Amino acid sequence: MKKISLMGASGSIGLQTLDILREHKESFELTAFSVGKNLNLARKAIIEFQPKLVSVQLKEDAETLKSEGFSHTKIVYGQAGLVEVAVCPDSDTVVNAVLGSVGLEPTMRAIEAKKNIAIANKETLVTAGHLVMEAAKKHNVSMLPVDSEHSAIFQALQGENKKNIERLIITASGGSFRDRTRDQLSDVTLKDALHHPNWSMGAKITIDSASMMNKGLEVIEAHWLFDLPYEKIDVLLHKESIIHSMVEFHDSSVIAQLGSPDMRVPIQYALTYPDRFTLKQADRLRLEDIGKLHFKKMDFDRFRCLGFAYEAGRTGGTMPAVLNAANEAAVQLFLEEKILFLQIEEIIEKAMHEHTSQQQPDLKTIQEVDSETRSQILSFYK
Amino acid sequence: MKKISLMGASGSIGLQTLDILREHKESFELTAFSVGKNLNLARKAIIEFQPKLVSVQLKEDAETLKSEGFSHTKIVYGQAGLVEVAVCPDSDTVVNAVLGSVGLEPTMRAIEAKKNIAIANKETLVTAGHLVMEAAKKHNVSMLPVDSEHSAIFQALQGENKKNIERLIITASGGSFRDRTRDQLSDVTLKDALHHPNWSMGAKITIDSASMMNKGLEVIEAHWLFDLPYEKIDVLLHKESIIHSMVEFHDSSVIAQLGSPDMRVPIQYALTYPDRFTLKQADRLRLEDIGKLHFKKMDFDRFRCLGFAYEAGRTGGTMPAVLNAANEAAVQLFLEEKILFLQIEEIIEKAMHEHTSQQQPDLKTIQEVDSETRSQILSFYK
Repeated sequence: MKKISLMGASGSIGLQTLDILREHKESFELTAFSVGKNLNLARKAIIEFQPKLVSVQLKEDAETLKSEGFSHTKIVYGQAGLVEVAVCPDSDTVVNAVLGSVGLEPTMRAIEAKKNIAIANKETLVTAGHLVMEAAKKHNVSMLPVDSEHSAIFQALQGENKKNIERLIITASGGSFRDRTRDQLSDVTLKDALHHPNWSMGAKITIDSASMMNKGLEVIEAHWLFDLPYEKIDVLLHKESIIHSMVEFHDSSVIAQLGSPDMRVPIQYALTYPDRFTLKQADRLRLEDIGKLHFKKMDFDRFRCLGFAYEAGRTGGTMPAVLNAANEAAVQLFLEEKILFLQIEEIIEKAMHEHTSQQQPDLKTIQEVDSETRSQILSFYK
Repeated sequence: MKKISLMGASGSIGLQTLDILREHKESFELTAFSVGKNLNLARKAIIEFQPKLVSVQLKEDAETLKSEGFSHTKIVYGQAGLVEVAVCPDSDTVVNAVLGSVGLEPTMRAIEAKKNIAIANKETLVTAGHLVMEAAKKHNVSMLPVDSEHSAIFQALQGENKKNIERLIITASGGSFRDRTRDQLSDVTLKDALHHPNWSMGAKITIDSASMMNKGLEVIEAHWLFDLPYEKIDVLLHKESIIHSMVEFHDSSVIAQLGSPDMRVPIQYALTYPDRFTLKQADRLRLEDIGKLHFKKMDFDRFRCLGFAYEAGRTGGTMPAVLNAANEAAVQLFLEEKILFLQIEEIIEKAMHEHTSQQQPDLKTIQEVDSETRSQILSFYK
């Protein structure tokens, strides 16, 4: 029986994680979870899974839930509550599915508490990959990727020796605007941007897909997860999102993981690894029905954010935190319809240009750089 | 240092095996090899690799080589010589790259002598899979596939638990006639048939590709190698031969092995497994240059031999030996331009129809059924 702490139960990954736990109650126990402000979900999940600990974002919401008398479940709140979920003594695995850099501190604390981490929160590795992977090594815990691309690479690497890797090939659908030229990006609307052709995901990640920043963050994440230099990590346009990513080895053999786009597959694999469970109602891959898979060279002029991410990754230190914070702020502004789509990359470029990277930053420095970058941008566009 | 016995050094697989051994002399020693009648190749390989034992097909050729004074190398001949190569005490791995059912007995003897087998000879598993796999299990030796499709599956299964397999998906290029309808097959010439679009291979296997019998033999081979029932083995048309085969698991995840068509990759993998070596002058896969991969449902009416193979496999016993012998005889007749292309399948169908399968045949029974089937067909068309 695996005992799970789920950070971010009400997001897209969180809800699908609950689905998987529900399907395999004989194998998993939900020991603790956090939600933001979705009290209805919290109530239902408390009744269904009977966890020992639940954290919500706001103190008043915690009071409300407490007053409803879930005697079996301790209710906590805020960042401290999130950390409590992450280090819950009864859990052995933490699914980190919160959005944004708020996931960083609880992840570090969970690693120190020797929990294996199923990591769906990109920002954790992007901004503090050096700290996270060092801690994971020190405390001998597994970092299990939940992202479909990293899961594909992780699956492709099973039974292989990492010294034989020639390169990783991360595939990119191209996002909502994959068929538009750069000129056609100047007047796209929020609604256009939120319409991803293959995946149904949260708003932030859908925008990041359209700008290719999502892939940029994945490149940095792959650098840390698989301990490879950036010149061994390539991105390939593959609009169908059927090949989720690949590994090329020195002998020129390429191992790929494929499937219909369904986030439950990588989520479940992170939970069942190294085993696999049957996935109910899975849309099984029938390549004969799909007919064709397309591949295209990545265009770094068309998708400038990807280049920024490689640059931030190679610079290292606090630069990826700036990249990420500037992106989060810019996407927030775009979602609030305060800026145009192409201004996202302008904001990121400017923030990186103005920042001097500090190498080997500690958690506090990263958090400072993160909030400074973010507040500067947001106050400018107030 | 791995010590190799190579059966069939002068064929397509044999020559490429020699290339690989040549590139990695620090890791491999060629202890023994066999050739048919290619004495020039034998001389060159004796001088280059200094093997302890060499077998040729004919007694007079053995005498000729002996008279040339290769003092380091024992020269033998015939089927007994081939067996001697297979069981050579100095070898730990036997590459079985001979053509046709002549490879069967030496393989069994090599397994009994506890050699790992890199198996390129399809007929061995097709006609005597039950004996070979039982012996391999009993003597605890590895059966390492050399065929690109089985190597792809073998690579995709590394680090996986076989109990989680949903199905194997063997890809098929469609061979020389993939773009022709059934009607357009009635008057194809030998020259047309010998022109394979993707792979440069021997004549027999090129014809087998055009008739789809090659894929049928691979299905039976996969049944034995991976211990799976026929309903878990599918064939998918994929004309580019880039995805060499795939494994679908219960969670709907599919692991595939890809690469430019180059037999050296699976040959080398069988020799270096579970490690991988750098492959010199490999044509590295660039999917962005290929652009599209195509997939199509297999057409069992268009390619009738594939259905015969599934039928022979499901019937079991001596039926696969009949399938294989009838096919070898028919292809020989086609190569001699004594029959038309579509007569190949007629001959196989008739031979299977007239045969009553004996279950659990021993080696002698298989060999008798093989030679009876073959001689009946050949004498009919004399």
